Parts: sequence; structure tokens; C-alpha cells
Amino acid sequence: MSDFAKTKSMFHLPEGLIYLDGNSLGPLPKHAADKMNSVMLDEWGEMLITGWNKAGWMDQPTRIGDRIGRLIGAEAGHVVIGDTLSIKVYQALASALEMRPDRKVILSDSGNFPSDLYMAEGLIASLNTGHELRVVAPEDVAANITEDVAVTLITEVDYRTGRRHDMQHLTQLAHAKGALTVWDLAHSAGAVDTDLSACNVDFAVGCTYKYLNGGPGAPAFIYVAPQHAHIARPALSGWLGHKAPFAFEQTYAAGAGIERMRVGTPPVLAIAALSAALDIWDMVEMQDVRSASIALTDQFIAGIEAHCPMLRLASPRDPNIRGSQVSFHFEHGYAAMQACIAQGVIGDFRAPDIMRFGFTPLFIDAHDVDEAVMRLKEVFDTELWRAPEFQVRSAVT
Amino acid sequence: MSDFAKTKSMFHLPEGLIYLDGNSLGPLPKHAADKMNSVMLDEWGEMLITGWNKAGWMDQPTRIGDRIGRLIGAEAGHVVIGDTLSIKVYQALASALEMRPDRKVILSDSGNFPSDLYMAEGLIASLNTGHELRVVAPEDVAANITEDVAVTLITEVDYRTGRRHDMQHLTQLAHAKGALTVWDLAHSAGAVDTDLSACNVDFAVGCTYKYLNGGPGAPAFIYVAPQHAHIARPALSGWLGHKAPFAFEQTYAAGAGIERMRVGTPPVLAIAALSAALDIWDMVEMQDVRSASIALTDQFIAGIEAHCPMLRLASPRDPNIRGSQVSFHFEHGYAAMQACIAQGVIGDFRAPDIMRFGFTPLFIDAHDVDEAVMRLKEVFDTELWRAPEFQVRSAVT
Repeated sequence: MSDFAKTKSMFHLPEGLIYLDGNSLGPLPKHAADKMNSVMLDEWGEMLITGWNKAGWMDQPTRIGDRIGRLIGAEAGHVVIGDTLSIKVYQALASALEMRPDRKVILSDSGNFPSDLYMAEGLIASLNTGHELRVVAPEDVAANITEDVAVTLITEVDYRTGRRHDMQHLTQLAHAKGALTVWDLAHSAGAVDTDLSACNVDFAVGCTYKYLNGGPGAPAFIYVAPQHAHIARPALSGWLGHKAPFAFEQTYAAGAGIERMRVGTPPVLAIAALSAALDIWDMVEMQDVRSASIALTDQFIAGIEAHCPMLRLASPRDPNIRGSQVSFHFEHGYAAMQACIAQGVIGDFRAPDIMRFGFTPLFIDAHDVDEAVMRLKEVFDTELWRAPEFQVRSAVT
Repeated sequence: MSDFAKTKSMFHLPEGLIYLDGNSLGPLPKHAADKMNSVMLDEWGEMLITGWNKAGWMDQPTRIGDRIGRLIGAEAGHVVIGDTLSIKVYQALASALEMRPDRKVILSDSGNFPSDLYMAEGLIASLNTGHELRVVAPEDVAANITEDVAVTLITEVDYRTGRRHDMQHLTQLAHAKGALTVWDLAHSAGAVDTDLSACNVDFAVGCTYKYLNGGPGAPAFIYVAPQHAHIARPALSGWLGHKAPFAFEQTYAAGAGIERMRVGTPPVLAIAALSAALDIWDMVEMQDVRSASIALTDQFIAGIEAHCPMLRLASPRDPNIRGSQVSFHFEHGYAAMQACIAQGVIGDFRAPDIMRFGFTPLFIDAHDVDEAVMRLKEVFDTELWRAPEFQVRSAVT
């Protein structure tokens, strides 16, 4: 059984603050700074260039990949980290499109994170061979998986509402129609009990700075299913995806399996922080995280509905189709979130009117949820959000 | 006048070691660990998600970009950091090819770093519209800039020999034939007095973990000339290149100028280390660095030729066409480099027979060069490199 009191003690959480925004940027693992210090002073400082071998820097992307893979139901040896999520979306999509040369549709939905759509747009414009990005409402995805669809590009958990797609069902439908699937796990990895292998997913991508607590700008990851890993052609064919990077050959030859999805030099310092976060993840089972997450989100919904009646639930009430966040509609959501933050409850706002709260059992417990509800009650009872200072928007919301 | 005694005192250099491999991985700035610690504890730890605004994380890629821009002769506001060099090569090439739709040739040379060629190959395969990667000998580049060339993809300083191309001349030739230019500055930035603006370069890319000392896996940079910056279409059209990333619009609209070359979330922790390195670069002028570099490399060549006659110079003797490294051919170069390292002189080896030594006036002085020559003399006088332990190759060389 996972010990969440223990994991909570391993995070730095500012005194008095209830942090319900780990779905945007996870908090600092206490030992991350020491780990980073050691990598900087003992490895970079002392080993210098020899750190690539002596400290194992070069192999980290697949070793770290496997630690993430365990949390998302990936087969060992089929996840690698690097780059950003947008780049990984491009890699997965480009490979998938080439595997379905006679089909021209990328199917996505309006609940997808915009950058996924932008990367698809960019790829389509580059290819210039008549591909179409078809964006439908989330509830219409299943009905739109037709035989012209080359690949579905779906984010499992909606970044605004927390609505969770049925990965198994949609993947089955896609395969039945001959389409491939790219799943974006940005709000799944470390949040829900995703099982890529059981769902027979083709490609998956995700980031590590949200629920996984890897730090601001931590590297992304990509999964390629075993049956595709040796077939997929990497459009972004960088030297570290080459089968022999240090032979410095003039012609590209793809590395074995997931190795080919590596591109450039691994971000060793960022990996140090991510590795510290994964030390904590190594201590828990995702089934326990999922159960605890459902309890916390159910509790939060009940509390807010009892005490803040002006908020209207934007997330699914059924926990089976909800991720690890709870969102509410409120007309003055931006100002209200600023007021919540001033009261020591950090969530975030997503246009046009979504107040979003993320729950990570690793560092949020039932007491925190009760306390957060009471502070939000105060914000809404006193209409604190009407204060002028909460109306001013900052550049990054 | 730049104070190189001062800058040298700002790097951590292991006792007794002469580090001539800053061209592969620069050493640790002493204050980088403190800076990182502050970003981790005071910013990530305390500010959490609000760090994107409060700590200015979101604007760092262009602010850091300008600090690098000063070292390579870029106009202010035309350099941005992020991703890896391979990704930046892809971005620049993809944009350039679209700006010359009637031409099908990417011209490069066999002295280019293989990953540049691999990325070009990958792009060409994706486009599938008859593009050709034409790779000629370095000395034949000028003669091969013909009217079918869409873009030249040239690394200014050869990673093996240190031979420096004439950027101004080749760029003029390219423009005269209607071609665009992408210059790779991996071995130029912080090494030589590159002047992108004076040379009228179209695109440039580079990395920051070599001469710039940004740390293992530090982010790359890209330059787009002012006349192209608002025209170039980013193939990798990620959300942070969108003109309004936080509007979360469903359709991509490119940001102003260089901003559009951003892709995903910036690597905040890696940037902390890079920023510390640039604190040192902010103290010097590239003209001084270049003069000192020429003096050091001339001194090293003279010393080695006087004391290690079995080594044959692989770098140009004329400093005007040489970067900030010196390479020698030696049949048993791999073993010999291991022996040099055992004697406390770190350089590196590049197949088939190149022993490579990099010189950065920021932390290498004339005394170091003399001492390095004496240690190498010992290695070759005693044929130390014949020892069995130096024959075993490691994975990363």
C-alpha cells in the first residue's frame, strides 16, 4: 500500500499554502536541490566531459523513460524522454501519418490542448499533400472515426474540464477502422491509471512537469508500441536516434526501437530534478494514487457544492470519466482565482470561465481539501473576488 | 579590455587538470550551483506556478537569446533559445525551403556535423517532394552553390579539424545565386568572432553547452535575420510560438518575429545554469576572446610540433581560417587521448584518427598551454599510449 503521508513529507510546500495546481506545475521534491547540486558539482564540475560515460548521462533518457513507463502501463524499453511535449506530438504524428499513406485525416477534438492542434497544423502545412486536421467535439470523436482517418490525436484528460476519454474504447474503434492512435498523457501521467499496453495504444506522449513534479520545463516523453517501434520512421532524425551516434556516419540509420525517438543531447540538469521526483513516484502504485485521487476529488466537489453554490461543476461528476482535477464555471473566474490565491489556495484559470483545481495524493490529503473548501467559502461568501486588485490580468494566466 | 584572469577564477576546474575539451562540454561556472539552488528553492519551491510571471520564466528564452546574440553579431531581438541544436536545424531548414519553393537542393559539406545532415535527410523524407541533400567536400562548397540550391547548410567551424569557413564570402555567393543560408555555430559561439549581421546571414543555429559553458544538455539557440523573421513559417508550430499562447485558440497564428521559433515550455532549470555562464560572457568582448584564442592555439601548435613530432597537424595553420580548437592526426589517436587524459590533459578523439583540443581564453591561459605540451611530450616520449588500458573503447568517445 502506498504511504501518502510519507510522500507528502518529501515535498516542499510553502507554509500555509494549499497547492491545487500540481496539474500545471508540480511542487519541488525536497531532495531535488541536493540531487541537482550533486550532478552539478560532482558530475559536471569534476567529471566534465567524462560524465557522459562515468555518470551515465547518455543512457538516462531510456532509464528515466522506464520509470515513467511503469506509471502509464508501458512495456519496459518503450518510453524515452527528451524535448518538449509539442516536439513529441510532432514525432508521433509524423511517424503515424507515414504508416497510413493512403489516408489524409488527423482526427482530434476541441478539448485537446491547443499546442497539439498547432503542431498538427504545422506538420500538415509542411507535408502539403492534402492532409486535413478534423477537430470535432469531444463527445463526437467516436462517431467521427471513419475509414479516412489516418490517426487520432486525442488528449486523454481534458486540460480544462478534466473529462477523461475512454482510451480503450476509442483505440479499439480506431483500430477497427484501420487508424492509428496518438494519445497525449499530459494530464494522465501520474494522475490516472492509464494502461497503454492493455489499451493497445500505438503512440503516446506526455510531459513531466505537471503531476510528475519534474520541475518547470522538465523534458517530455514518448511511447511507441512494441509492434511499431522498429518500423516508425523518425521525421526528426537527430544523431542520438542514430544506431551508432558516435560513429559520426554521414547517413542516418535509425536506432533500435524507442532509441530512434531520441533527437539531440539529453538535458542532463533537468533530468536530475526529474529523477528526484521519480524517486517519490517509485514508492507508490498508480492504483493507490487513482483511488486516493477519486476520494479527494469527490470530497472537493461535495464541499464546494455545499459551500459555494455560485460555482457550477464543469468536470464530470462520474469519477470514472474524470481525471485528477476538478473544474468549475464561474463568470468572474479570473478574479475569483486571484482571490483564492490571495487566501492561500492556488489553482488556475482557463478561459473563458474555468476555475481549475488539481489533486495529487502524493502531497494533497483530505485535511487539505477541507481547508481549501473553507477558504473558498470565505472568498465567495464575502465576494472577495470583487476587489480591484484581482481584476488585473497578468501575461501568463 | 577583457580580464581573463578574472574569468578564469570564476570556473571550477579540478585541481591539476588542464581541460582542453570546452569545445565539447564547457566547465562549471562556480556560481552556477548557487544560481540553480536559488531557482529551485526560491522560485520553483516558493513561487510554484506563479514563477512563470513573478520570476520571469516565460520571457527568459528571448532575454537569454539576446545575451548570446551579442557574442555572434546578431541584431537585438533576433535570437531565441530552446530545444536542441538538431531541432533548431530542422526549424531553420524547413523555413528556408518554403521560402525557395522552386529549388530542391540543400547544399552541405562533409565537414558538417552528422546530425545536421541527418535532420536534413529526415526533413527531405517527410516532404517527399524531390529535395536533394547535396554533400560536397568543404573546399568545394563555393563552386557548388548553383542556381538550384535552395539553402546552404554549413557549420562554420569543422568539429573535427577546426577549419573555419568564410561566412561572409559563402553567404554572398549564396545570395548572388538566390539561395538562403543556414549557419551552424556549434563551434563558433563563444569561440570565434562571428558577425551574423555583417555577413547578412539568413538563419543561424547553435548550442550552448560547448564554448558557452551552459552545462550538459543546455538548450540550443536560433537566429532569424530581421528581413525573414516575420515571414518564416515555423514548421514546428508549438504554442509558445503562437502570437497569444494563453488565449488557447484552436488555430495557430505565428508570434511576432523570433518569438515564433519558440516551441514548447522553456527549460527553466537548464536556463538557470546557462544564465550563470552568460554572467561570465557578459564581462568580455568577443574580439578579445578571438585574439587570445589565436595566441593560445598558435602557441599550442608550435609547442606540439616542437615536442611531439609524431603528431601531424589536422587544423589549418593560418589562424584566420581556424576556429578555437587544434586537431592532430595520429594513427593511435584514441589510445593516445586516453593516455593524455590519464596525464591530466583532457581533449577528445574523433574517428578515424583525430586528437582534438579546444582552447577557451575564459579559463585557459598560456601557462596551461605550456604545461599541456609538456604532459603530451611525456605521453609520446614514453609511448604511454601503448598501455593496454588505453586501448579499450567506451560507448561515448
